[in-house]
Amino acid sequence: MGTITTLRCISCERAFSQHEIEYHCPTCGPRRGTLEVLYDYDGLKQTLSRDTFGGLRDERTMWRYLPLLPIEDRRFIQPLRVGWTPVHPFPALAAEYGLADLYIKDDGQNPTASYKDRASALVVIKAQELKRKVVACASTGNTASSLAGFAAATDLDPIIFVPKAAPEAKVAQLLVYGAKVFVVVGPYDVTYDLATEAVETFGWYSRSDGSNPYIIEGKKTAAFELAEQLEWALPDIVLVSVGDGSVISSICKGFDELLTLGLIERAPQVVGVQAAGSAPIAAAFEGYTGGEVSFADIEAQTIADSICVGKPRDIIKAVKYVAKNNGWYITVTDEEIVAAIALMARRTGVFPEPAGAAPFAGLIKLVEEGKLSGMRVAVMVTGNGLKDIANAQKTVGPPIVIEPSLAAVKEHL
Amino acid sequence: MGTITTLRCISCERAFSQHEIEYHCPTCGPRRGTLEVLYDYDGLKQTLSRDTFGGLRDERTMWRYLPLLPIEDRRFIQPLRVGWTPVHPFPALAAEYGLADLYIKDDGQNPTASYKDRASALVVIKAQELKRKVVACASTGNTASSLAGFAAATDLDPIIFVPKAAPEAKVAQLLVYGAKVFVVVGPYDVTYDLATEAVETFGWYSRSDGSNPYIIEGKKTAAFELAEQLEWALPDIVLVSVGDGSVISSICKGFDELLTLGLIERAPQVVGVQAAGSAPIAAAFEGYTGGEVSFADIEAQTIADSICVGKPRDIIKAVKYVAKNNGWYITVTDEEIVAAIALMARRTGVFPEPAGAAPFAGLIKLVEEGKLSGMRVAVMVTGNGLKDIANAQKTVGPPIVIEPSLAAVKEHL
Repeated sequence: MGTITTLRCISCERAFSQHEIEYHCPTCGPRRGTLEVLYDYDGLKQTLSRDTFGGLRDERTMWRYLPLLPIEDRRFIQPLRVGWTPVHPFPALAAEYGLADLYIKDDGQNPTASYKDRASALVVIKAQELKRKVVACASTGNTASSLAGFAAATDLDPIIFVPKAAPEAKVAQLLVYGAKVFVVVGPYDVTYDLATEAVETFGWYSRSDGSNPYIIEGKKTAAFELAEQLEWALPDIVLVSVGDGSVISSICKGFDELLTLGLIERAPQVVGVQAAGSAPIAAAFEGYTGGEVSFADIEAQTIADSICVGKPRDIIKAVKYVAKNNGWYITVTDEEIVAAIALMARRTGVFPEPAGAAPFAGLIKLVEEGKLSGMRVAVMVTGNGLKDIANAQKTVGPPIVIEPSLAAVKEHL
Repeated sequence: MGTITTLRCISCERAFSQHEIEYHCPTCGPRRGTLEVLYDYDGLKQTLSRDTFGGLRDERTMWRYLPLLPIEDRRFIQPLRVGWTPVHPFPALAAEYGLADLYIKDDGQNPTASYKDRASALVVIKAQELKRKVVACASTGNTASSLAGFAAATDLDPIIFVPKAAPEAKVAQLLVYGAKVFVVVGPYDVTYDLATEAVETFGWYSRSDGSNPYIIEGKKTAAFELAEQLEWALPDIVLVSVGDGSVISSICKGFDELLTLGLIERAPQVVGVQAAGSAPIAAAFEGYTGGEVSFADIEAQTIADSICVGKPRDIIKAVKYVAKNNGWYITVTDEEIVAAIALMARRTGVFPEPAGAAPFAGLIKLVEEGKLSGMRVAVMVTGNGLKDIANAQKTVGPPIVIEPSLAAVKEHL
């Protein structure tokens, strides 16, 4: 299991021990002072090779990466199969788009059907190691259902704050898992602030994105998997949707750790895809020239609820890590996202939620702009389409309703 | 790949070659004359051992069982990860229920989130091998979405008939995948008859349960997986929900083939769980004493849409195979099913659709009756809870809606 050497502030780079602080640098505060979890990389280099990196080859979950995960007691690992989500190749579609390769990594195949399971699975373990009783989060929906799902079979009590706009399916999932659910009359950003206040007031353990540093540790495993699943022949480009900035930061960190450990020579360029009406990170990245990150919060608006975030909590990492990675940001409109849901489902068989379709919309855009010609590209799908039926329905017409007669069938053929 | 020796009528046992007939025995007709797919078991016995049974150990999908699957051209295998769904152990819950072991095999983790993917993945290959252009099915929902999903990335045109009562999420999934969808104003049984008539009239390829013999071949892989995943220490009891009778028949056939091949000495007893308002197979089994199966169709009624079947098409196999297996049938009420959704989600983290919760309801019932004491039990979850949010919502109260203030949170703690 991973030996943490340091928690380091992403802004002032001050180093702390893991027992000294919990969520952020006391000087830089929340957002500016989010923490990086660092391990004994020199020691790890001695023991990890490409062959041993995945640990037990039979562990087809994210737990194959225990040496790089901040877990002390594996008895708290829940039985649900989390991570090691499938990577599908689509050679015909790649050829059509002028790419050398096209892969889809489908994190909608996680236990509660989103990428967020990687983080919740880990935070639930930390909460138990730390003997906390309540885990709480603010969430647009997926963080919440993953937390509720992974806490279900434990003694932890999950308390969850979601904005009024969270899709019905996601809220139902929470309630079925037995979580205490507060639906906050306000957007995600207000919901987040309230959850933070409650966490501080009542001493709960936080699993909100951009607070708990271990969240990114769980999420980074998708980058590790991509390397192993493609037999270390990583793609040139990885596209992923961006809301709070935690997922993209985690993917960059994962690739960066592989570089640090000498397991790869070059990381894929990570391209963050934001919804046009919810793109404060893309805007901050646009103006970033190194040093301190400048940013402005906005009132976000997009049908892709999972990335509808105007006040992104992991914005500093999301800007700095992508700059270091040599990646970049693009935006796509809601119309492009909605069109990408059906396009992706019909061409690949993978049915994404709107935020899961956003990187595919970004792919189409970059292909049309001729920016990916001849490249090897991977698209990260962060949530299953069944999570947001209402928006999926916008992409299609109604079914044909008929009386049970062959004549009625004939009429519509 | 599997060498089929015979298609054999389940009633008169007459043997046909696979090129001679397509869906049923010409003498016994549909339902009574469904076909069993038989392979060269003597030849397979020479090559298959427990070690070689799973084929390439790295193929973590149902395609690891190619020697026992009726596929001729593996180029038609779609990239989606189908099968090798997780088996989760729940030792604490087992102890609480007085069981030696409790496992949940979660087929809601398949690509389109149901057990039916195993069959559709295979039928889509057969359709292409046979150079058919249109694949059609009647479906309560899951068969349809699996067919649409697996046909999506092929040149096949899926045409789908669902009853008016099919849940919104399932219909949306079909449309997003680009299928032509007929919503038939009538129950599943009427929908099925219409689909059959259309298939015959227009020469489409059928993927309706109880017609195409290859459906059961795809589905049986879950039994193979259970054996391998539990390292050949199979449970005493396997509980599974029953609608048309195809899934339970496939599980029995899978275990039976393992017996035939000498890979196991004893098969688990398979317990079919039907909804009380939709239990014609349980009724037929009750009166079965060998020989010809007597049955009566009914007007089915249950909230578990996937098993709401009054005229089950695979009833002959479902009765004969379970009798041969030494299994039995039980029924559970809709109230018990609804209660099992939340109970299962909260105790295990697995969120099932109503039909997926039915076997858990059956488990509770048998535990209360003292019939499983000290036994090793597996529950087969056939569909993901996200497929039917409306019924899941019935199991829980509403969330707490609050204005964004700490005072409002305090009020509800």
